[in-house]
Amino acid sequence: MPFDYLIPLLRESSSRIILLVMDGLGGLPIEPGGPTELESARTPLMDRLAAEGVLGQVTPIRPGITPGSGPAHLALFGYDPLEYEIGRGVLEAVGVGLNVGLGDIAARGNFCTLDKDGNISDRRAGRISSTEAVPLVERLKKVEVPGVATEVRHVKEYRFAVVMRGENLHPEIHDTDPQSTGVPPLPATAHSPAAEPTAELFNQWIAKANQVLSDQPQANGMTLRGFSTDPRLPTFKDSYGLKAAAISVYPMYKGVASLVGMQVVDFGGETPGDEFTALAKAWDDYNFFFIHIKKTDSKGEDGDFEGKAKIIESVDQALPQLLDLQPDVLLITGDHSTPARMKTHSWHPVPFLLWAPATARPDDQIAFGERACGHGGLGEFPSMNTLPLALAHAGRLEKFGA
Amino acid sequence: MPFDYLIPLLRESSSRIILLVMDGLGGLPIEPGGPTELESARTPLMDRLAAEGVLGQVTPIRPGITPGSGPAHLALFGYDPLEYEIGRGVLEAVGVGLNVGLGDIAARGNFCTLDKDGNISDRRAGRISSTEAVPLVERLKKVEVPGVATEVRHVKEYRFAVVMRGENLHPEIHDTDPQSTGVPPLPATAHSPAAEPTAELFNQWIAKANQVLSDQPQANGMTLRGFSTDPRLPTFKDSYGLKAAAISVYPMYKGVASLVGMQVVDFGGETPGDEFTALAKAWDDYNFFFIHIKKTDSKGEDGDFEGKAKIIESVDQALPQLLDLQPDVLLITGDHSTPARMKTHSWHPVPFLLWAPATARPDDQIAFGERACGHGGLGEFPSMNTLPLALAHAGRLEKFGA
Repeated sequence: MPFDYLIPLLRESSSRIILLVMDGLGGLPIEPGGPTELESARTPLMDRLAAEGVLGQVTPIRPGITPGSGPAHLALFGYDPLEYEIGRGVLEAVGVGLNVGLGDIAARGNFCTLDKDGNISDRRAGRISSTEAVPLVERLKKVEVPGVATEVRHVKEYRFAVVMRGENLHPEIHDTDPQSTGVPPLPATAHSPAAEPTAELFNQWIAKANQVLSDQPQANGMTLRGFSTDPRLPTFKDSYGLKAAAISVYPMYKGVASLVGMQVVDFGGETPGDEFTALAKAWDDYNFFFIHIKKTDSKGEDGDFEGKAKIIESVDQALPQLLDLQPDVLLITGDHSTPARMKTHSWHPVPFLLWAPATARPDDQIAFGERACGHGGLGEFPSMNTLPLALAHAGRLEKFGA
Repeated sequence: MPFDYLIPLLRESSSRIILLVMDGLGGLPIEPGGPTELESARTPLMDRLAAEGVLGQVTPIRPGITPGSGPAHLALFGYDPLEYEIGRGVLEAVGVGLNVGLGDIAARGNFCTLDKDGNISDRRAGRISSTEAVPLVERLKKVEVPGVATEVRHVKEYRFAVVMRGENLHPEIHDTDPQSTGVPPLPATAHSPAAEPTAELFNQWIAKANQVLSDQPQANGMTLRGFSTDPRLPTFKDSYGLKAAAISVYPMYKGVASLVGMQVVDFGGETPGDEFTALAKAWDDYNFFFIHIKKTDSKGEDGDFEGKAKIIESVDQALPQLLDLQPDVLLITGDHSTPARMKTHSWHPVPFLLWAPATARPDDQIAFGERACGHGGLGEFPSMNTLPLALAHAGRLEKFGA
């Protein structure tokens, strides 16, 4: 469990918690002394919640560490990414919506170019476009190896993910990428005796896959990396006594949520409003709701300061639908920072807002923004502490000791 | 030791430290946007100390965890309650002033009602009042078992504490409370072979005790729980090189202080002024003083916002007596929060004031209160860091490394 000491303290309650994650929320001023994306956005409702609640800022992994999306979410869910590792193959697979169940083996695949001697001449197959790669992935889907089932899905450009399912599979297999050109891809080799049959199955699959690609000028080979299996994370139910739902447009976040035992809610649409409507429909069936807003991060990565601010505004405008549900605890934060100025994820702490009408101890901040959060009553703390705080404010923890 | 790295750094000094703990000090506004108990109290002296010193806020156990009094004090004394556990029996016993020495076994007792078949019909003996229970505890005090001495003391209503003293006693004994009715109390059974004779001695004591209760309509039986012994905590002397005195009206806090080797100072009276007078008298004999003010917590648990503020004011009014002693370091904080609005202990961080005329680095806060502490120069930190900070400001720590 992420917090062993919570287990004996958990108690039943009818309270409900909403964790609203705007991906890459934290930002930077685009010009010296100016506002950040969040500060420049017009967010009257979040500002009201900031005034009634309490602010702080969270550090996702460790100070100075820029997180990927998987670890950043694990941390927000209370699982220290330095302790709970999700294999790269699993992360790639769940990121495109592939299920990785107990005993399934996932790997990340790259198309590559092989010369006439079978040596790699381009490790990324000339960085072929998604348009070129998708039909090739369709070919791979038809490749069959006796005794196991495989599922393949395109990721982006020259990248794909593969999941193998069967009996007694083991993930202790070395990458087949030799990390250089002029040599052939390595065979899949096991680094534990138990994984030898699995490595052999992958070699069979690779051989057949290379055959169906043999007519390709660029993507006529492949390398596989990050062999891994379900990380068997403790579930939200076991860790926190929560029945948790995940609402996200993007497969990656549904995937990480499902790895900690959240139920992924299906819904149509992709705006914040659509997501909040889905949450409202599921309100009676769960007591914890993780909602993921992707586009704050996308706009940040595009370097689109205004666009990121506008996404934040659209979330603010949709918020009444969440507040009408009268959650006991509403947390608004991000998984990490993605300043438009940097066009990439960053290590900066992330603004954090805790609103809990019955128990929040207000500070004197009256707007939701990076500077205000730096003065917030919650101070600066690890993202990992989010769940214990939420449980406390939701009345879901007994006293520790007499 | 709670901080191994302090040991080689400890140095002698004539400096003196006062740790003034107002139990349950942290609060919440009683109405939205209003002041907390501490903020509403008129505390000109604490405000002056806040201006001259530096503020912060402390988290007693871990974020979100509501502490009991025992663990909360252990944390303030620098002992991580997740690492140093005091048994429930010991805590109950020291809470009513029973001494639990090395090798003594303490347990918590409940009177219960047994039906004619010896089955429990009420696990709390109809929740008999203290008035009814005290004479029954007097009867228990006379129960003797050959080879050991027992001491019994009433706690509250149907609850009492018992301590057994003798040779080779061991605490690894299961609770006798079956946690349900319609079945008899369990016999005391050992979960280590070494504890079998101790379990048998407790069974003898219980049998004789039940006899002297047999005429009772409600409290004609008992269950015992939380068998435990002196937790052998490292002492203040060994951990910090301090000769420590404890000044408290309530037995519980004297008990916890004595478990870390503090000398409990006897005195008459029960006001903050009485406690400060006792401290002044002991000034020459110690270099660390823990003073405990109980009624801030009691008023908080009563939901008496005004009453809690008034207790804080009475402490402020008595403060000149402490300041006249010219302590080198004065720390004012609480063991945990007890917001009158919640009428119970809570997980919220606790206001913290460090005053050290020679070395405190002032922030720009000019009043002692939750919001000000949220902006304090010390930031938010674990209660466990209090002692190292105090030692530093008292000039009692050498440089680490060259």
